[in-house]
Amino acid sequence: MLRIITGQAEARTELRRISDRARDDEIRSKEALVREILETVRLQGDRAILDYADKLEQRPLELQRLRLSGSVLDAAYQQIPKELLDAIKLACRQLEEFYRQRVPKSWVQFREDDVAWGKRYLPVQRAGLYVPGGTTPSLSTVLMQAIPAKAINVEQIVMVTPPDAQQRIDPRILVAAQEAGVTEIYCLGGAAAIAALAFGTETIPKVEVITGPGDIYVTLAKKMVYGTVGIDFPAGVSDLMIIADSEANPIQVAADLLAQAEQDTSAAAILLTPDAQLAEIVQEQVSQQLQHHPQRIFAEKAIAHYGFIAIVDNLEEAVELANHFAPQYLALQVSDPWELSKQIRHAGAIFLGNSTPKVVGDYLGGSSAILPTSGTARYASTVGVETFMKQANMIEYSPAALKKISSALQILAQTEGLPAAADSIRLRILDFGF
Amino acid sequence: MLRIITGQAEARTELRRISDRARDDEIRSKEALVREILETVRLQGDRAILDYADKLEQRPLELQRLRLSGSVLDAAYQQIPKELLDAIKLACRQLEEFYRQRVPKSWVQFREDDVAWGKRYLPVQRAGLYVPGGTTPSLSTVLMQAIPAKAINVEQIVMVTPPDAQQRIDPRILVAAQEAGVTEIYCLGGAAAIAALAFGTETIPKVEVITGPGDIYVTLAKKMVYGTVGIDFPAGVSDLMIIADSEANPIQVAADLLAQAEQDTSAAAILLTPDAQLAEIVQEQVSQQLQHHPQRIFAEKAIAHYGFIAIVDNLEEAVELANHFAPQYLALQVSDPWELSKQIRHAGAIFLGNSTPKVVGDYLGGSSAILPTSGTARYASTVGVETFMKQANMIEYSPAALKKISSALQILAQTEGLPAAADSIRLRILDFGF
Repeated sequence: MLRIITGQAEARTELRRISDRARDDEIRSKEALVREILETVRLQGDRAILDYADKLEQRPLELQRLRLSGSVLDAAYQQIPKELLDAIKLACRQLEEFYRQRVPKSWVQFREDDVAWGKRYLPVQRAGLYVPGGTTPSLSTVLMQAIPAKAINVEQIVMVTPPDAQQRIDPRILVAAQEAGVTEIYCLGGAAAIAALAFGTETIPKVEVITGPGDIYVTLAKKMVYGTVGIDFPAGVSDLMIIADSEANPIQVAADLLAQAEQDTSAAAILLTPDAQLAEIVQEQVSQQLQHHPQRIFAEKAIAHYGFIAIVDNLEEAVELANHFAPQYLALQVSDPWELSKQIRHAGAIFLGNSTPKVVGDYLGGSSAILPTSGTARYASTVGVETFMKQANMIEYSPAALKKISSALQILAQTEGLPAAADSIRLRILDFGF
Repeated sequence: MLRIITGQAEARTELRRISDRARDDEIRSKEALVREILETVRLQGDRAILDYADKLEQRPLELQRLRLSGSVLDAAYQQIPKELLDAIKLACRQLEEFYRQRVPKSWVQFREDDVAWGKRYLPVQRAGLYVPGGTTPSLSTVLMQAIPAKAINVEQIVMVTPPDAQQRIDPRILVAAQEAGVTEIYCLGGAAAIAALAFGTETIPKVEVITGPGDIYVTLAKKMVYGTVGIDFPAGVSDLMIIADSEANPIQVAADLLAQAEQDTSAAAILLTPDAQLAEIVQEQVSQQLQHHPQRIFAEKAIAHYGFIAIVDNLEEAVELANHFAPQYLALQVSDPWELSKQIRHAGAIFLGNSTPKVVGDYLGGSSAILPTSGTARYASTVGVETFMKQANMIEYSPAALKKISSALQILAQTEGLPAAADSIRLRILDFGF
């Protein structure tokens, strides 16, 4: 049953508990193993990868099947329904259009004072995408990583994903990857896959940025290789917050909460509303809709542990709680969502209005499904084109422009105790002879 | 003596050795201590900070003097020369103008298909800036962190920096910080300072992003708290690469190389040139200019270990080596630097022409002095306004727009084994009644 609570204080306490649920001491106990995997793969390359697959996953890998061949990739298209292929194609088209909007562009400004300055934006050359395994294929995870990388022309888009017991990857994943622009696919998962992407092996190329969610081993490995490569952000456990007023449809709100809870027993599904009647109907609806859910016990667990409805005094209070929590997904199912959205300071993605459930964003909407969790929306951004770009500043000073600031530069350099720095200015001014 | 080498192969070997100089096993031996400091500060707050200052730094701190008072800050202005204050003010004006160029702006697009989508860019609320201590004040480190944060209106700009034996901070640092927009200053350094910023204590506020260079303890601490807060990037050891042709002035090139080498015994100073004569004069000039350098032995060490001149066949080969190395500072002292710059794929910052030594960028030029080192320019960007911003995607679908994609959404959700997700779409379409 989805609890109903009232009062800001209790809501804040609950939100803090949910925010902190990922801070697990169990994590630390896995660090030594992950570190060992990283080091071994760095030193031994492919051999270490095969060893770990054997030892840790009990899934012997064959080196020659590590990279998926063109014929396996082609065959995947024969193994999926036509309507799924169409849905994937639609998603790719729509997402690519979204990601191509306002891509940061290089610029240079030639100023009147004889100074030119600007910024150079460039894509990385190689991106490494992690796609978790599981009983069902995580198509959105493929699309939301590959399409932004493709939209800015990353040359090599390398995907790694763990195979099943027969060393196979779900054909639906393979089709989604190809449609989304992945250039090569390796069947390999876990910390060893992250190590391979970070350091490179004989078979797997070293990349510059690694993105994507994964289990605790993958997350730890990504954090540890950060610095050797860039990463999107340390993945956490998913959370959805809905702010709803009396305009919202409680049946739909309940479905949205369940769509969140069914993903993971640790997923958080939270509703804030000033409407006590809505709260009660949503509570009832959640129980009712749960009855027919194929993974009922699973979803109930998330609802019981990390779900609640808080009755707030007004929408301002709801916004305050949202900014305090910094949700991954924030849905504003209120009469004027754009107005309310102006007050939001921290959220991974914002879904406006009653006909924009978060599921839209997970597949087609362009809001991305790979979003900062556990309050990290305070500083982190969703995976997008910027994840795969870097920038360099450029400056040019004419002799006259350098002359104008030369005294200030020399004073600053001398203050920092850097005589050669001061000399590098002084010698030029001497040379200019003006 | 600055060595001269010829041939791509040897240049590549040297560049790799220099790139890898920071990968030090000594680092790992310090992890346990840093982790202990982080945990203790997280749990005990101010008390742990005072304990560590006493124990590790042998510099007892008084709690009531941890945060610098208004009177200390005011007094700093009386303790510095007028010309330095003017130079600082000039730097602030010029840098602020640079950082205000093309700040990412929020946008929303209301499309014809009844979909609205957009991006919301927001500054973080609290930034934490680390400024290393030392015998001379690192003014540029203050300016290059505080000014971009101020340019986008970060509310709280918190600076931490280690005090001297009398628990004092150099007044030149204090003036630079105030002029650059820092809102509060704490005398505290090392891993404990990073922990205080990441977790907050009774006295020091928790921030959302921590930036700035530091020693190995600071760098390790930043890497470990990454995920709790955002960071700029793990700082490494500085490197400068100059590509020069016969148009370059060897006396000035030599001064630029020394301006790099004098900063740190691990700093790398590299010249690539197709002009063998230029190479020889630069070599001679470096030796000559070194003779009068007050920290001669210090700078010589950097030159000997991590400096070299490579004679290349042509500028294309130089560019290839630069892209291979991904330098922190790249200076193009060639006849057509803009043309050559188009071929650069990886560099922290690019300095164009003979009258733009890297020192310009360190203080006034807007290229920033806090740049990705050790080849991390392949994926990381200089500290700038984006370092202190995050973005959230926003989407709104009308009922009609949702209807149009509803089949695809349901197919994708069912494929992923998420029935409630499919329901959240189906129930809405039912409700629309069209």
